[in-house]
Amino acid sequence: MSEGFRPGAAVARRGFASDNAATIHPDVLAAIARVNVGHAYGYGHDDFTRGLDARFREQFGEIARAYPVWSGTAANVLSLRAACRPWEAAICAATAHLNVDECGAPEAIAGVKLLTTPTDDGKLTPALAERIIGRIGDEHAVQPRVISISQCTELGTLYSVREVMDLSELAHAHGLVLHMDGARLANAAAALDLTLRAITTDAGVDILSFGGTKNGCLGAEAVVFLDPELADGFEYLRKQSLQLASKMRFVAAQLDALLTEDLWRRCAAHANAMAARLAGRLGDLEQVVLTQPVQTNAVFATLPPQAIAELQQNYDFYVWDEHLGEVRWMCSWDTTEEDVDEFAVAVRAAL
Amino acid sequence: MSEGFRPGAAVARRGFASDNAATIHPDVLAAIARVNVGHAYGYGHDDFTRGLDARFREQFGEIARAYPVWSGTAANVLSLRAACRPWEAAICAATAHLNVDECGAPEAIAGVKLLTTPTDDGKLTPALAERIIGRIGDEHAVQPRVISISQCTELGTLYSVREVMDLSELAHAHGLVLHMDGARLANAAAALDLTLRAITTDAGVDILSFGGTKNGCLGAEAVVFLDPELADGFEYLRKQSLQLASKMRFVAAQLDALLTEDLWRRCAAHANAMAARLAGRLGDLEQVVLTQPVQTNAVFATLPPQAIAELQQNYDFYVWDEHLGEVRWMCSWDTTEEDVDEFAVAVRAAL
Amino acid sequence: MSEGFRPGAAVARRGFASDNAATIHPDVLAAIARVNVGHAYGYGHDDFTRGLDARFREQFGEIARAYPVWSGTAANVLSLRAACRPWEAAICAATAHLNVDECGAPEAIAGVKLLTTPTDDGKLTPALAERIIGRIGDEHAVQPRVISISQCTELGTLYSVREVMDLSELAHAHGLVLHMDGARLANAAAALDLTLRAITTDAGVDILSFGGTKNGCLGAEAVVFLDPELADGFEYLRKQSLQLASKMRFVAAQLDALLTEDLWRRCAAHANAMAARLAGRLGDLEQVVLTQPVQTNAVFATLPPQAIAELQQNYDFYVWDEHLGEVRWMCSWDTTEEDVDEFAVAVRAAL
Amino acid sequence: MSEGFRPGAAVARRGFASDNAATIHPDVLAAIARVNVGHAYGYGHDDFTRGLDARFREQFGEIARAYPVWSGTAANVLSLRAACRPWEAAICAATAHLNVDECGAPEAIAGVKLLTTPTDDGKLTPALAERIIGRIGDEHAVQPRVISISQCTELGTLYSVREVMDLSELAHAHGLVLHMDGARLANAAAALDLTLRAITTDAGVDILSFGGTKNGCLGAEAVVFLDPELADGFEYLRKQSLQLASKMRFVAAQLDALLTEDLWRRCAAHANAMAARLAGRLGDLEQVVLTQPVQTNAVFATLPPQAIAELQQNYDFYVWDEHLGEVRWMCSWDTTEEDVDEFAVAVRAAL
Repeated sequence: MSEGFRPGAAVARRGFASDNAATIHPDVLAAIARVNVGHAYGYGHDDFTRGLDARFREQFGEIARAYPVWSGTAANVLSLRAACRPWEAAICAATAHLNVDECGAPEAIAGVKLLTTPTDDGKLTPALAERIIGRIGDEHAVQPRVISISQCTELGTLYSVREVMDLSELAHAHGLVLHMDGARLANAAAALDLTLRAITTDAGVDILSFGGTKNGCLGAEAVVFLDPELADGFEYLRKQSLQLASKMRFVAAQLDALLTEDLWRRCAAHANAMAARLAGRLGDLEQVVLTQPVQTNAVFATLPPQAIAELQQNYDFYVWDEHLGEVRWMCSWDTTEEDVDEFAVAVRAAL
Repeated sequence: MSEGFRPGAAVARRGFASDNAATIHPDVLAAIARVNVGHAYGYGHDDFTRGLDARFREQFGEIARAYPVWSGTAANVLSLRAACRPWEAAICAATAHLNVDECGAPEAIAGVKLLTTPTDDGKLTPALAERIIGRIGDEHAVQPRVISISQCTELGTLYSVREVMDLSELAHAHGLVLHMDGARLANAAAALDLTLRAITTDAGVDILSFGGTKNGCLGAEAVVFLDPELADGFEYLRKQSLQLASKMRFVAAQLDALLTEDLWRRCAAHANAMAARLAGRLGDLEQVVLTQPVQTNAVFATLPPQAIAELQQNYDFYVWDEHLGEVRWMCSWDTTEEDVDEFAVAVRAAL
Repeated sequence: MSEGFRPGAAVARRGFASDNAATIHPDVLAAIARVNVGHAYGYGHDDFTRGLDARFREQFGEIARAYPVWSGTAANVLSLRAACRPWEAAICAATAHLNVDECGAPEAIAGVKLLTTPTDDGKLTPALAERIIGRIGDEHAVQPRVISISQCTELGTLYSVREVMDLSELAHAHGLVLHMDGARLANAAAALDLTLRAITTDAGVDILSFGGTKNGCLGAEAVVFLDPELADGFEYLRKQSLQLASKMRFVAAQLDALLTEDLWRRCAAHANAMAARLAGRLGDLEQVVLTQPVQTNAVFATLPPQAIAELQQNYDFYVWDEHLGEVRWMCSWDTTEEDVDEFAVAVRAAL
Repeated sequence: MSEGFRPGAAVARRGFASDNAATIHPDVLAAIARVNVGHAYGYGHDDFTRGLDARFREQFGEIARAYPVWSGTAANVLSLRAACRPWEAAICAATAHLNVDECGAPEAIAGVKLLTTPTDDGKLTPALAERIIGRIGDEHAVQPRVISISQCTELGTLYSVREVMDLSELAHAHGLVLHMDGARLANAAAALDLTLRAITTDAGVDILSFGGTKNGCLGAEAVVFLDPELADGFEYLRKQSLQLASKMRFVAAQLDALLTEDLWRRCAAHANAMAARLAGRLGDLEQVVLTQPVQTNAVFATLPPQAIAELQQNYDFYVWDEHLGEVRWMCSWDTTEEDVDEFAVAVRAAL
């Protein structure tokens, strides 16, 4: 018998590695159990999944069409695949998950070239994007079709609604579409204290990768089209791209739970608050220098190498930049105040 | 609030549409809950998932290397992607899921051409396969690399161990590999009353798509390499192909539960028994003609069109061939004797 | 120094292997030399290539838009790539060049699945094609988008204009497009004694692979859109698919020569006549059985194995079907009456 | 009749747009004519093409295996396709033709992600490349497999043999291969006054795109493997990638002519000399500032916008950077001293 699954051993140590190192929220697990009754047609042709459409429309407006998928990489890559013809390209920050953490899936699976630009804080600006929009009509060059931004970014930073609008205006003026990688969209909405719709549909986003997994789900994301014309044929694309769940009701139930009674916001706001608390607890330490503003649920900081090494003996987290001695501490819906306070004490001890 | 997820409405009507219309087995759901404690590194770098390796080795031999993925289509397509270079092809029955039910994913995602042959019962034979193995060294033709069979087949039929061995010998004699689509491998092993290893590793299978979803899981399959050299680099391929679960422990837990105390066999044997019971209940009816031998959990039969129409008003199931008036009745781990008996009565009434 | 290129050695033996074993027509070579003066912008942005458009419009109607490419495989694969979205498929005869002689390029390069059907003579019929058009709206299945036929076929057989029209009507009734692989279109037009336009544009063909190489060119084909909407973005697709000639004027010159003063028809008619002559010379021999009607420039026949072996010592040609003892004798623009008569004598001697 | 091809009209104006705006060298055209005799098996299975192998081995060493293709984009993309598995990537300068001028073919056709770095002069250095080689073993990131450099670069600059060696040593130390885009390899060898072998095989290059088209051919390049293991299966890859010429003898003849009696060097050295002459003629002009050293057959310079506009009325050339007012003047094998001197006078007049 494999030890790992026996009760005692299942108590893994706590840490700040990632919001996907967290558990499933009890309400989400309960929702899975609740629909685990009777028979239901597979592949989303069931009442449970049909009901989910209404949930997404409540949150994103009547125009929204949502397609659940398994993973965030899939939501991003399928967004590009839906928007781009073979010679069309996507503009993104050099630090975008699309560019650095999807093992070449945009290129190999969607056949889409990424046109990237360095940024200070993971955020595209109209000026940065516009510099890349060029060679229109030149058959030797890929033709820009998508501007893709992450809200919040991989560095935990936030776009204001105004900043998103400026990018969508630029995109639309050039006949492009705006894609938002919202693996942590809930954290952004909570941080901005706005509705999901205000920071997406109303800000001109055309396609959204909506994230659930990092915010309390088991494995549930969605591609949400806010320009429904882009969804034409997407049911085939999802199936062909290996993302059509056969027992879809159990994926739909997760997203439904997240969108019920603002669970998404409660989870995300808590994670954000924990990051703020952690930053606050360490704010007076000279040797701990924040490298990005703490706007959502991530804390990026530099500290001495030997302190990093000592902390990692007891706590899981990632070194973000070996050369700089920069670490990332990620909080999640299940990070507790005790987790934070205990860790802050450990940081002080390690310095 | 979406009606679908409220308790009362969740009691969907029962039927014989598919084994993926069934529920999650309570032991599987319990396993998910059991590992829902503490933090764990994502992407399979956790103790829970590492423990799963041992389970697969127990079942398939020390040589086995298992990689969990989300879906059966993915398991099949990634098996081909792992085995084939761009100019290499896979031989399969014309009725194979790979060929007819994956929306062109083998071609579009793996870039692999399928070389197909008609069969009577969904089963390849060495003679049928050998006819396709040709044009070796001819640069104008794809070069066969994989023989892919389904155990059990899409028609519910079974390969004997001897038949699998004959195909693996043919494959190996030509430098090819044998892939088995085992979305319903458990049903096959239960029907043959053999171990998983006896019908795969020991029969010469090189790559296996191991199915869990149709046998009580939420969404969990695995690509199992029985020739470990073929697994080289597969961790990248899985990630790039959108199949690396971030919260992997919850996928691993499902498969672990299935492989614990022979849950897989108990579930599958029950489903098989229910199909046999259904066939038995209808055996005396002249108007119900079985079109395939009932060897696993599927019953294929023809009956008069008006009887089909009447039955479908109360029971979900698929018409397999409109022209022939052929239907498919699929039993699952959660099909009850009452389900079968009640349905058999309804069939009699409809005739 | 490589022997092969010295004058004496360059006199290769003559045969019936293929129309691409033939030489370049002197008029084509002269056209290349004629434009070999001065500088010209590359990639088709030159007056020579622009002039070619008018030539194609003369032959195929004002609606035609022609894009030269290097090879016939490329013309076919790019036709599919232009017409199909990722989940769309092409219907063709099992014997189509697309299916058997392009090393999986439709699947690997265009990502397009082929839906094939056996035929007697290489020709699709509406009945055969219609049987394949199905599962519309079913996300598990590729969606038919193209019917692709070869005129003349790989077996040298011909479609009548009526037959092409019937297929185009079927295609258009289902929202599909009709592609014609015209690697030997000239042979078909000459055999039917009709204009190029009559057997393509006027018969409802939407996309044409127009062949030059097998009819006297060095290496020049074209994708000709007869439904110009399908050409949208094709300049990018051609470049990306490795088919944009930098010194395009020399490709354009070949096609221009072919379309000048009906050179295409003269060459093709001659090749056809030589095949008819060969069939005539052998018609009285009991041991030589024609397996396809000789309608264009190919002769398919069975004869005794030892006769085949003996003939191949002195003449190049392909054995088409080893089991049947079937050979293919291909005539070309440069096949002479002496070639035919001498070979007919050799056949008699070998029997 | 299309005007463009009639004698008089064929005298296009002369310019400095590109070396592919040049004519075919008479010796190359004569070689095509010389092999235009008799029948020859297609697809390279002829004596002419077989003879070419020996030529390449004379130039690049016994280890070399050469595969003619139609275009330079194809040579580059097929080199990557041959070297990389789906998750492997290529490192190149941001200005590389692969990255900016192939309409996304590396990504869409080869499925290979490019990892790029800015450079001053189009040249990679070990330090620049090494910074990109990272995340080895991290399944979320593509794994570097190829370092690709252009010799000479798109900016006309040259690598010394030492510099190439340093890059190949870096590549091999990390298990990578070194690819050289040699679309203008002849210009580099002529400029360095070295053999082709000295700057490729002997410098550690593993795969070479050998260019003929820009140096006097009609359309002929080759993928040359200097590590023959990488060529395994390349005949299939070439065919599938739409680059197998059916009448191969006429492609082989072009390359054979180029490799005969050092035609390649004579052509390239002349082009280089013309660029040097042009730079020399303009060296005293304050308003003409060279932006790259003139090492091969390109002159990059800035001059006032109105002068550019005036010159372009009579001479074809490209503006390289609109913002900087930078132009590219390209010399070719058929650029004459009179062309250069007349143009230099025109530049003076335009200032």
